[in-house]
Amino acid sequence: MNNKSHGHLVWKEESRREVFKCPIFSLRETSSRSPDNEVRVFTVIDGPDWAIVVPVIETDQGQAFVMVRQWRHGSRELSLEFPGGVFEAGEGAAEAAARELREETAYTPGKIIKLGEMSPNPAIMSNRVHFFLAEELEYLGNQDLDDDEYVDVELVPIETVFQKMGTPPYIHALMGSALALYTAYRKKPNPLV
Amino acid sequence: MNNKSHGHLVWKEESRREVFKCPIFSLRETSSRSPDNEVRVFTVIDGPDWAIVVPVIETDQGQAFVMVRQWRHGSRELSLEFPGGVFEAGEGAAEAAARELREETAYTPGKIIKLGEMSPNPAIMSNRVHFFLAEELEYLGNQDLDDDEYVDVELVPIETVFQKMGTPPYIHALMGSALALYTAYRKKPNPLV
Repeated sequence: MNNKSHGHLVWKEESRREVFKCPIFSLRETSSRSPDNEVRVFTVIDGPDWAIVVPVIETDQGQAFVMVRQWRHGSRELSLEFPGGVFEAGEGAAEAAARELREETAYTPGKIIKLGEMSPNPAIMSNRVHFFLAEELEYLGNQDLDDDEYVDVELVPIETVFQKMGTPPYIHALMGSALALYTAYRKKPNPLV
Repeated sequence: MNNKSHGHLVWKEESRREVFKCPIFSLRETSSRSPDNEVRVFTVIDGPDWAIVVPVIETDQGQAFVMVRQWRHGSRELSLEFPGGVFEAGEGAAEAAARELREETAYTPGKIIKLGEMSPNPAIMSNRVHFFLAEELEYLGNQDLDDDEYVDVELVPIETVFQKMGTPPYIHALMGSALALYTAYRKKPNPLV
């Protein structure tokens, strides 16, 4: 079932055109040629890259994650998440991660470490999500939120997040991805052992 | 920073209208009232729910995941993933998971266990992704693919997936989410210990 080159799986894009645009993403119809030489049209979501930061802090009760609770307009519910957001123009990944952490939580990292880079959904999205670990946090005292952002900051024991991920309010799947990369980083080579 | 009711974070949807439609999703403009009583418009992606299945199989070299390698049109690359896909009309979550597993890999599960249910991206998507563990796999011998699907089946040692998640070809972030839920299921109460 294996084939090292995997050429029999590869499609070639032949043309593309934008079919919709809004402030946070645009849609593109992309015409691609299959391994069997047939042309099909797919709809793809284009947008800027995102950063997600796993901020770890020492508390009297042990290590905690700095998390943010906010309303999410897609799923219409409150979600408890790692800080993160969209890259601004010209911004590097680590820079975006540190800025989002600072704006949403008022913590600034002394140390920021890349955990990985993935596609939030490679079937329909072309952008990437960049995951970081933030340590040596310094508290600056004030969030810096947009005027349509309402964000509560909460320190959650690490074990709680591991146990509750996948149940409300831990419903954002990309926070599960962040947790998997954090686990792998902490427990290489095998997080299950 | 905590408030048990969290009412100061909640928005209320006032109206919605569809602004785009394609075979796999539609777009909606949703008008919502903020905690400070201001109305803002957000764009949301509506679509059917998805299932992702973590299939575990015993091999001569130990436990492995049954994974699928396929071209992804959003990120334009090959991706090695857990099987999964979109619910069909009238289908339950476990039923969709078992069907996708069977069609993509030719394995059918004796046992299917729900690991969790999340939002693939609650900021911009309204649908849910349902995660399952599949065990006691029986090999049926033939995939049942759509005519635009090209899927290689690969048995990958569990440790390899944990170590490589977040690097190519393990680039699908929702597979990281699946891994986090699988880890939590196997190692309750604390997967890091």
